[in-house]
Amino acid sequence: MSSSLAPFFNAKGVAVLGASTNPKKLSYGIVNNLLSHGYEGKVYPVNPNADEILGLKVYPTIADVPDPVELAVVVLPVTIIMETMKAVGERGIKAAVVITGGFKELGEEGAKIERDLKALTDSYGMRIVGPNCVGTMSMYTGLNSTFIKGMPVAGPIAFVSQSGALGGGVIDLVLDSNIGFSHFASLGNQMDVNETDMIEYLGDDPNVKVIAVYTEGLTDGQRFIRVCREVSRKKPIVFLKAGKNEAGAKAVSSHTGSLAGSYAAYQAALKQAGVIEVQTLSELFTVAWTLGTQPLPKDKRVAMTTNAGGAAALAADSLDFYGFSLAKIDPKIQERLRTKLNPSAQVSNPVDMLGSVSPADYAWSLENLDADGGVDVLLPILVPQALVDTPGVAQAWIDIKKKSKKTFLTILTGKHSTLEAEQALNRAGVPVFTYPDQVGPALKGLWDHKEYLDSPKFEQVEVKGVDKHKMAAAMKLVGERKAVGEYESRIMLEAYDIPNVPGDLATSADEAVEIAQACGYPVVLKIVAEGLLHKSDAGGIKLNIKDDEELRVAYDNLIAHIAKVEPNAKIQGAMVERMAEKGQEVIVGMRRDETFGPMMMFGMGGTMVELLKDINFKIAPLSREDILAMIDETIAGRLMKGFRGSKPADMEAVIDVIARLSQLAIDNPEIEEIEINPLIVYPEGKGVVAIDSRAILK
Amino acid sequence: MSSSLAPFFNAKGVAVLGASTNPKKLSYGIVNNLLSHGYEGKVYPVNPNADEILGLKVYPTIADVPDPVELAVVVLPVTIIMETMKAVGERGIKAAVVITGGFKELGEEGAKIERDLKALTDSYGMRIVGPNCVGTMSMYTGLNSTFIKGMPVAGPIAFVSQSGALGGGVIDLVLDSNIGFSHFASLGNQMDVNETDMIEYLGDDPNVKVIAVYTEGLTDGQRFIRVCREVSRKKPIVFLKAGKNEAGAKAVSSHTGSLAGSYAAYQAALKQAGVIEVQTLSELFTVAWTLGTQPLPKDKRVAMTTNAGGAAALAADSLDFYGFSLAKIDPKIQERLRTKLNPSAQVSNPVDMLGSVSPADYAWSLENLDADGGVDVLLPILVPQALVDTPGVAQAWIDIKKKSKKTFLTILTGKHSTLEAEQALNRAGVPVFTYPDQVGPALKGLWDHKEYLDSPKFEQVEVKGVDKHKMAAAMKLVGERKAVGEYESRIMLEAYDIPNVPGDLATSADEAVEIAQACGYPVVLKIVAEGLLHKSDAGGIKLNIKDDEELRVAYDNLIAHIAKVEPNAKIQGAMVERMAEKGQEVIVGMRRDETFGPMMMFGMGGTMVELLKDINFKIAPLSREDILAMIDETIAGRLMKGFRGSKPADMEAVIDVIARLSQLAIDNPEIEEIEINPLIVYPEGKGVVAIDSRAILK
Repeated sequence: MSSSLAPFFNAKGVAVLGASTNPKKLSYGIVNNLLSHGYEGKVYPVNPNADEILGLKVYPTIADVPDPVELAVVVLPVTIIMETMKAVGERGIKAAVVITGGFKELGEEGAKIERDLKALTDSYGMRIVGPNCVGTMSMYTGLNSTFIKGMPVAGPIAFVSQSGALGGGVIDLVLDSNIGFSHFASLGNQMDVNETDMIEYLGDDPNVKVIAVYTEGLTDGQRFIRVCREVSRKKPIVFLKAGKNEAGAKAVSSHTGSLAGSYAAYQAALKQAGVIEVQTLSELFTVAWTLGTQPLPKDKRVAMTTNAGGAAALAADSLDFYGFSLAKIDPKIQERLRTKLNPSAQVSNPVDMLGSVSPADYAWSLENLDADGGVDVLLPILVPQALVDTPGVAQAWIDIKKKSKKTFLTILTGKHSTLEAEQALNRAGVPVFTYPDQVGPALKGLWDHKEYLDSPKFEQVEVKGVDKHKMAAAMKLVGERKAVGEYESRIMLEAYDIPNVPGDLATSADEAVEIAQACGYPVVLKIVAEGLLHKSDAGGIKLNIKDDEELRVAYDNLIAHIAKVEPNAKIQGAMVERMAEKGQEVIVGMRRDETFGPMMMFGMGGTMVELLKDINFKIAPLSREDILAMIDETIAGRLMKGFRGSKPADMEAVIDVIARLSQLAIDNPEIEEIEINPLIVYPEGKGVVAIDSRAILK
Repeated sequence: MSSSLAPFFNAKGVAVLGASTNPKKLSYGIVNNLLSHGYEGKVYPVNPNADEILGLKVYPTIADVPDPVELAVVVLPVTIIMETMKAVGERGIKAAVVITGGFKELGEEGAKIERDLKALTDSYGMRIVGPNCVGTMSMYTGLNSTFIKGMPVAGPIAFVSQSGALGGGVIDLVLDSNIGFSHFASLGNQMDVNETDMIEYLGDDPNVKVIAVYTEGLTDGQRFIRVCREVSRKKPIVFLKAGKNEAGAKAVSSHTGSLAGSYAAYQAALKQAGVIEVQTLSELFTVAWTLGTQPLPKDKRVAMTTNAGGAAALAADSLDFYGFSLAKIDPKIQERLRTKLNPSAQVSNPVDMLGSVSPADYAWSLENLDADGGVDVLLPILVPQALVDTPGVAQAWIDIKKKSKKTFLTILTGKHSTLEAEQALNRAGVPVFTYPDQVGPALKGLWDHKEYLDSPKFEQVEVKGVDKHKMAAAMKLVGERKAVGEYESRIMLEAYDIPNVPGDLATSADEAVEIAQACGYPVVLKIVAEGLLHKSDAGGIKLNIKDDEELRVAYDNLIAHIAKVEPNAKIQGAMVERMAEKGQEVIVGMRRDETFGPMMMFGMGGTMVELLKDINFKIAPLSREDILAMIDETIAGRLMKGFRGSKPADMEAVIDVIARLSQLAIDNPEIEEIEINPLIVYPEGKGVVAIDSRAILK
């Protein structure tokens, strides 16, 4: 591996700057960890006031450290961080873990030091993990630059955690379980190396079978999506986001100074990038462990064999909730099962062998269920009982798993009497869950990954016929204003060839009549005035005007009315637009997310928007599949397909509008929000028309 | 306690029928358990082929057992169960735990034995727990009639489990944690004693602070609601239902032969009865343990103090999701906090004291947060780290908790290094969670219980003016049919004084005109024909008929059309009804649930019903509060309150219709389903009108 991140996991030598002789200091723990887990490289404690630590020679300065040295671990105070890192750079070391805290997480003063530090380390071409982190581990090389007590066994999961403390907690959680890890990286403030870098790096490491990420906020969401889209084709990425909602986001920003970003944008981005989102810390590891050890199921049919019907019923609820089902066991196999099991046993699914079950019972039932072509997932369940040989049962499960090609998950609902069995199962790469409800998310993780692998590669939907001059003209019309009314936003839509309802701005009654005659009666009249966004609430709209005479009166009345009720509004005139024929009303819009950029939205339009909240999001750029999925997942989308005898709506026209609006958002980063509501959708082949629109600029 | 269930937990003597001298037998385990946990009553093994078990004298038959003996535990085969139980009855024992399996759970043959057994034990006035169960425990008397290894410490939680195996698993799970239990009862097939009986009994036991129930299906849901409504006023009931959906229900029915019932009905019933529903086995105990040890919070403001920002962020997400919020810490208290904490610590909420925290830091932060009147819940969080004294931190938490009156929950995210601290916390009655996301459900449990205690006592809404003769007449008209069309269902609604749109059945064009003249044009014409429920699909409806002439033509055409397209339909004529004015369309209906009886429903009506699935359920009888809640939780309900300038709808008229339809359902158990769709709701004071209705009889 020639990646600049390689030294964090397999440097030939590691220097620990600030290594202490005091066993109560974290830096002592780091040196100890570097010596305790089979790391074969050199370890160099650096400390001007010590001679020896743990039998190692101590070097007074980093300049004194001999080759090979490829990684510096820095535990010195923030007050001397600049000179320290300069010395590291001068020594020619290209990778450093900065454990030291006191940067961005403490506010602007610390953020400034962090920016200065970044400039310095960049000038040396160094890669930095941290600051404010707990370091890195490779379970394969034994390089452990953290002060965490204990190290998991080697295995398939690479774990990337923004929070070092939480990472340490996770290691404490899994230490006794034999769940296997390949890498651990705590990224802290991510001054340089961030999750996306790590994901890209780990994507190429053959020891890594699955990447588990805990984060509080990403930077450069667009690059994250691009990288994850590629890596997800090679191995699954499982992702837990903290700071999903208001309270969580507040907790996050007071913690590492991250911006939590909009959770809706995260959900959309993760899905588009093939990343498997989990909801809890526990799920992060049950799902990753499953993906790291099990083959993807062919289909969603699960067979259970159990000594406790209740546990099977709870598992069945969970798998059903996550879209899996109970396999129908072949009647011949049911008969075969019966020949050796307790006569009171149930041989349909779940196979319930009653409380006092033997290892042989499990072997027999699993062997037969494995032979059933209608079964994709095997799920043995044991609730420990007085007379049951729990370790023996675990061994029977392991033996069958070795012979089986099916997805294999197990449940062992206990704690006091189950540790030995749990360790044996995990050691053999057989995921074991304590609670029946943990099965559903694990299965869904497998299925999500399978669906991603089966989906076509991302190809951005193409948009032709954009008139950049017209767009520039619209932006010029807007000038310095932030709120863009319909008059200018119509021109923007036109520039991207999105059909508006026929009409134009009238600045006098005469002009209004001229426009109406051109587009045809009946027409609608809408006030156009700077500083007046809610036209309808102010009485600024007049519908269904039938002829010239009515229009003249309406125009003059409207101008006079607005001048009276909104004396501060700068009236420009009124839009005259043909009354559109009725059709299905949808909303198409874009809100620029601070992390991911243009977040497109689609859903039920008109006045029901707020009540139904039938809105779906995707991050642009979009593929055709993204757009179809965005439409499909809404009630509006189901209505479009034809409902209770109504004709199917013009799906292609809607797809085209979404594609064009997303191109508009990509091309014009100064547009913060833009929205067409309603877009009226007519039956297949009859197109769409934008009835109203607005935008907000940066 | 003079309850007939008392002997299951504090009999003065217990006989074990089928006690074996073989330590590998379950019955040996039972005798051993009766001797091992401080039970002070007499223990009598019964076995004609043994002299001594575990130092106890063995009696050849139950008749030989001397007084005092108040409970029989039966482990003999189903083949001799009748004679065994007869002997128990003859001996005058009024309570028995039947561990033996081979009854209802194996199908009809077993179900018959179970019915015979019930008749026998009823004739002796005996109460039976089981069959097919693992027995009962009292952590206070030490009476343990199970063969489960180990017994939890004494504490507040009474645990009632339909599944014995799962109950045993739970005990294995909590055994090392010091979570305290008062009772354990595994009910098995519930031939006699069911959950409701147990809940009623435990409701009166002062040692019980909270009742945790795991079940797969209830019997007599109406009694369950009545009993739980009362018991929930005294102590919280926490409830986990297995068999929620198709797969789970299938797993359940092949297990104990229970009917899983409709989950929607369960959800409604639990809420109405003040029972706190949880979703997972793990939640059942975190929520129960919280309710059993913590005071209810005054409000929803949580203060966290942590050494790991990430864990706090995940906890904040969880509490926000469940409706709690981060307290705003008084600035004066923030200043005080700062005086003793690490200068880099965050003193807003969450108080983040950074990784290497001391017990004194927690004591200081908690003491100050406890003094903040704007804080209702204290939530210290620790992720174990190399230099942190985890047991010392736990002790600091316990010390503050003893002085605090606030709700107090704790998070300790670890396993390898946290057992000692976890045990100390639970022993002191301080709930400790491993995962940050476990906090939300626990807090919600407290809040749900508080809201129930604050709600008015159930008072059934009163319905007057029911015309039972008219109802009887309608039923007579229906005769033997199961499907009831609008003609008869209108009469049923009339009998309960629910307003129908004016109209009547016409059997000729002349009659049609007569009816139309009476109710006023325009009218609608709807075919009435036996065996034709979907009038509209068959072209059996003609709208907006304006005068006599048009009506005559329409009538004749309609009859001719239906005779042609539905030659098997028995045409009775056509309903002639006034075209109703437009208004908000809602649906009001009832479906009789196999477990709970009349399940009322309310939601958005008309053609959007299927698409929006905006339906809410409650079990009748209903209080006014039930009806209001049922309406409130729907989109239809929000629309009724006035939306975007529309006038508020006639809420009282809708409440009245729901009350009347639920009375109709209660009075007429032969009605399986009845539905008004749409019911048109007019603005406040203008009432409602039923436009169409139908019913299905048993």
